Amino acid sequence: MRPRFITLEGVDGAGKSTHLGFIRATLLTLGIDACFTREPGGTRLGERLRELLLAVETEVSLETETLLMFAARQQHLAEVIRPALVAGRWVVSDRFTDATFAYQGGGRGVANARIAVLEDWVQQGLQPDLTLLFDVPTEVAAQRMAATRELDRFEREEGDFHRRVRAAYLARAADNPRFYVLDSTRSIADIQSDIAQRLAQLAEQP
Amino acid sequence: MRPRFITLEGVDGAGKSTHLGFIRATLLTLGIDACFTREPGGTRLGERLRELLLAVETEVSLETETLLMFAARQQHLAEVIRPALVAGRWVVSDRFTDATFAYQGGGRGVANARIAVLEDWVQQGLQPDLTLLFDVPTEVAAQRMAATRELDRFEREEGDFHRRVRAAYLARAADNPRFYVLDSTRSIADIQSDIAQRLAQLAEQP
Repeated sequence: MRPRFITLEGVDGAGKSTHLGFIRATLLTLGIDACFTREPGGTRLGERLRELLLAVETEVSLETETLLMFAARQQHLAEVIRPALVAGRWVVSDRFTDATFAYQGGGRGVANARIAVLEDWVQQGLQPDLTLLFDVPTEVAAQRMAATRELDRFEREEGDFHRRVRAAYLARAADNPRFYVLDSTRSIADIQSDIAQRLAQLAEQP
Repeated sequence: MRPRFITLEGVDGAGKSTHLGFIRATLLTLGIDACFTREPGGTRLGERLRELLLAVETEVSLETETLLMFAARQQHLAEVIRPALVAGRWVVSDRFTDATFAYQGGGRGVANARIAVLEDWVQQGLQPDLTLLFDVPTEVAAQRMAATRELDRFEREEGDFHRRVRAAYLARAADNPRFYVLDSTRSIADIQSDIAQRLAQLAEQP
């Protein structure tokens, strides 16, 4: 079986983290011991850049932030994702380039064309086989977030920002058949039933 | 007088630092209070990335290193270089993009075309008006370096690396009329006489 590259996307509070354990367990029942990783982060350098970017006091220009995201992603590809795929392992990444199009692009206004230049530069054609997009209305996500933990710099942005991020995700999903959009307002059982079905389909494809 | 953007380039040990004070003094006698800055570094973010990159133990892929260089440069342009030029001040930067073509490109083998994509992304057409390239044979530079201080990761690279860096600098100088190559094996007085003349010419141009 050809190893697959799966990414999880969605606004903060959409429930990605809730389903990580289920995705791991489902893949294991399919006989797949996938490599689980995340962005930003996923490497030592990535973690240090993540700290830098999430610190509330860090003042970096929007375009610098975008370049740092792609520097972390380049390292993540070189150190984790490509070696795992080459070794025949599936890879599941909690966020990848679609998050940059959604947050830095849709949310903050970096032109999609400029992000696409960096996407080409680091990925050189590599794209996820499947992107699970956890989608919820902005208000639902905000309520979930407020209930659980202290917010970082990205999370403190106001509602309009999160609406633009969500819209950018949905626009990308409409343009890319690799996306599978999950209505994340449903029950956990319903969502997980969808996920299990989609992963089984992917494992069956030659 | 239109503000000018001047960059200083050359292999480690070529004598750039020796002449910084002289360049500042010469510009002042021409009535120019320039903004002096440097790469990597020049901003708080840049300094933190500089620490990360110069630390002997940091393991980053060559392409990640290149992206980090351009992230620091993007911030440097946004925070220091463009605001100074917009305010009518001259800017003198100790190293800029030619250093990436020389070190990451010539020295380590990143394709020039890939570096040029990032150059376009961050500079969007902005180029130095004058680049002073301090040029010395590799052996002379190495002797000067060994005599003065402990070497960092870049400086520990072997002679072949430094020869490739020098060759890449000279190739860029041959292709770009903004370069002024200074034979840095000459006496300090001779070099400074050349620098003073070149800066006076630049100040006289409309």
